Amino acid sequence: MIQCNENYLKLQRRYLFREIAERVEEYQDANPGGKIIKLGIGDVTEPLAPSVAEAMHEAVDEMSEPATFRGYGPEQGYDFLRGAIVEHDYRDRGIYVERDEIFISDGSKCDTANILDILSADSVVALADPVYPVYVDTNVMAGRTGHVDAKGQYDGIYYLPCTAENGFVPDLPSRKVDIIYLCCPNNPTGTTLTRKQLKLWVDYALENMAIILFDAAYEAYVREPRVPHSIYEVDGAKRVAIEFRSFSKSAGFTGTRCAFTVVPKEIVAVSGQGRPESLNRLWNRRQTTKFNGVSYITQRGAAAVYTERGRRETQALVDYYLGNADIIRDTLTTLGLDVYGGINAPYIWVKTPGGMKSWDYFQKVLEELNVVITPGGGFGPSGEGYVRFSAFGSRDDVEEAMERFRRGGI
Amino acid sequence: MIQCNENYLKLQRRYLFREIAERVEEYQDANPGGKIIKLGIGDVTEPLAPSVAEAMHEAVDEMSEPATFRGYGPEQGYDFLRGAIVEHDYRDRGIYVERDEIFISDGSKCDTANILDILSADSVVALADPVYPVYVDTNVMAGRTGHVDAKGQYDGIYYLPCTAENGFVPDLPSRKVDIIYLCCPNNPTGTTLTRKQLKLWVDYALENMAIILFDAAYEAYVREPRVPHSIYEVDGAKRVAIEFRSFSKSAGFTGTRCAFTVVPKEIVAVSGQGRPESLNRLWNRRQTTKFNGVSYITQRGAAAVYTERGRRETQALVDYYLGNADIIRDTLTTLGLDVYGGINAPYIWVKTPGGMKSWDYFQKVLEELNVVITPGGGFGPSGEGYVRFSAFGSRDDVEEAMERFRRGGI
Repeated sequence: MIQCNENYLKLQRRYLFREIAERVEEYQDANPGGKIIKLGIGDVTEPLAPSVAEAMHEAVDEMSEPATFRGYGPEQGYDFLRGAIVEHDYRDRGIYVERDEIFISDGSKCDTANILDILSADSVVALADPVYPVYVDTNVMAGRTGHVDAKGQYDGIYYLPCTAENGFVPDLPSRKVDIIYLCCPNNPTGTTLTRKQLKLWVDYALENMAIILFDAAYEAYVREPRVPHSIYEVDGAKRVAIEFRSFSKSAGFTGTRCAFTVVPKEIVAVSGQGRPESLNRLWNRRQTTKFNGVSYITQRGAAAVYTERGRRETQALVDYYLGNADIIRDTLTTLGLDVYGGINAPYIWVKTPGGMKSWDYFQKVLEELNVVITPGGGFGPSGEGYVRFSAFGSRDDVEEAMERFRRGGI
Repeated sequence: MIQCNENYLKLQRRYLFREIAERVEEYQDANPGGKIIKLGIGDVTEPLAPSVAEAMHEAVDEMSEPATFRGYGPEQGYDFLRGAIVEHDYRDRGIYVERDEIFISDGSKCDTANILDILSADSVVALADPVYPVYVDTNVMAGRTGHVDAKGQYDGIYYLPCTAENGFVPDLPSRKVDIIYLCCPNNPTGTTLTRKQLKLWVDYALENMAIILFDAAYEAYVREPRVPHSIYEVDGAKRVAIEFRSFSKSAGFTGTRCAFTVVPKEIVAVSGQGRPESLNRLWNRRQTTKFNGVSYITQRGAAAVYTERGRRETQALVDYYLGNADIIRDTLTTLGLDVYGGINAPYIWVKTPGGMKSWDYFQKVLEELNVVITPGGGFGPSGEGYVRFSAFGSRDDVEEAMERFRRGGI
């Protein structure tokens, strides 16, 4: 008799962004006409850079000719893209990473979820709270947790609260943990860790033989020199950290799908017999067995991001969104709200006025201002009482949304 | 202390096609100059159809314009593609499937692997032997097996031998199993099950509350009317079968990446408490949490396959490869080999002459004829003593390879 994976039944309700989409739809159906501005989901709105589009056109042409057609590519990604990443994302910053430590994929969401495949089901997981909900949900699915409590915390997960009180910098855990998720710049708070703060975590991991899953999907937004672009800027990190990067937010690839993960050859996990096993080797086995690589056309587009023109064009996209972030930050600050993030990140994290619940404030803003934001509680227990504003949107939309806040109150 | 997923250490050596690639490379390095013809891996060689390329060019243009740019798409795939599939792959054959039973993905390899996420780790797995090695390996990784024995069989997996002796039709298991993999047309044997033979399996699954994972990646190659294109042509199958389809072999998408999986809403698995749980709902939860959908550009290309012109063009591709299959079948038969498959499939399954071991014959053919084929033993214990010829290749290559067999002996 076929049984389901029981762990799925422990999951709370629906995936956060589905839930938001459905609430918005419901409201829209009941109140047609009004223009709803979406500053909710972290989805880019500006078109692909011309250099990227050109590269993809060329690649489609190649795929249409017998002499240049390509079938299965390497599951780990094409060398031309892995090489460009090694050179521009790392070597240019003085970081030494090898090509076969880079694994191209169709998204960081997939990678941060799939990486769990190669780690023991008994590992103890710690994560910054609030954080991108996929980390928790995929660990629930994989059986690393118990049930959820009334506060929204899963038994067996070690939550590292990040709130205004500690400046959104998590404290080191007081018990041993095995897997540590750090998202920097953080989604949803838009806050970051400095090189010095990150060093504490790398040292912790080295001492405790833990592993850091470092999600740097928003790396392109880092502007302050004290904030690292890569965890490998910190000494020793190559022995304990796996880094996730994405073209989604840096080059507008949310609908085009390309990302990569760095699994250094130095990182080991132990087997039951205490033998060290290379995670690079295990991840390679996972990817070659369960994945077939990313579309050649997409990889050509991603590689164009690293050309001189591509870098200039995608840089302009990032600057555009950071300009939006400035406008949101300034407006909400002027209105007297407590505002965080938004300097090295496209997200602005805001305390709800009067201690309102996240979902209540979400609903109020939706109904009174026709603006969609994201309730902080959806990112973890410590996100309750906050909401996330996303700077992804057209300048006009962002300005209109802020105008509505100014007019409509908060 | 971080521990790895111990199950990975049970895996045998390397993934089959990596192993082949490395052996070929080694031979080539030692013997440069000779032209090696690859009839090994099942990779298409002909370019994308013009209608597909045109649709992708249009989609790239849309992604380059603010008004038509698209960010995140639905994780389950765009409606335009799900709708085309419902209409042409199913309704046109008298099969009723709903849009929200179709899940677009980047490959059947991923889907047949990932579907295991939603099923209990205790499920007993049965599979046709020989078969696509990903089924076994992904179950090993997920902990559904013990260790491998000298014959190459994993403890805990129920192998269903398919050999010349039983006409490559597996017998029903004599003990209860929960998950049954059927690949039809089969990779690697190129043989099929008739509607009547498949009915026995559907009835078995209905009686035993088992689930059938029906891999129909080679459906486009079916020519004989007695062979079903979809398992849903069999009564009751919608209550027990999940079907996997791909654009890889039907439209040459191996390097472009698009596939889909049908999870009917009728299928349930029970929870530990014996409650029925919808697998459609669980798969939807899995895909929305661990996957971010397929590139819009790729989905537009896939949708073009269903236009009248697209169907004509991709049909011509399939016919071309089937023409190759005919040539291989005829030549090898004339040379006195025992030849199977290749009628409703792009694979020809051949008994090694004189009872030679698969890898030995692979090596002999590589060294003496400079032709790459695939050793049958790599597909499971019952594949030992056979090799697979792939009909994917240019006509010239196939003809030259067959000429080498005629000249060089077998």
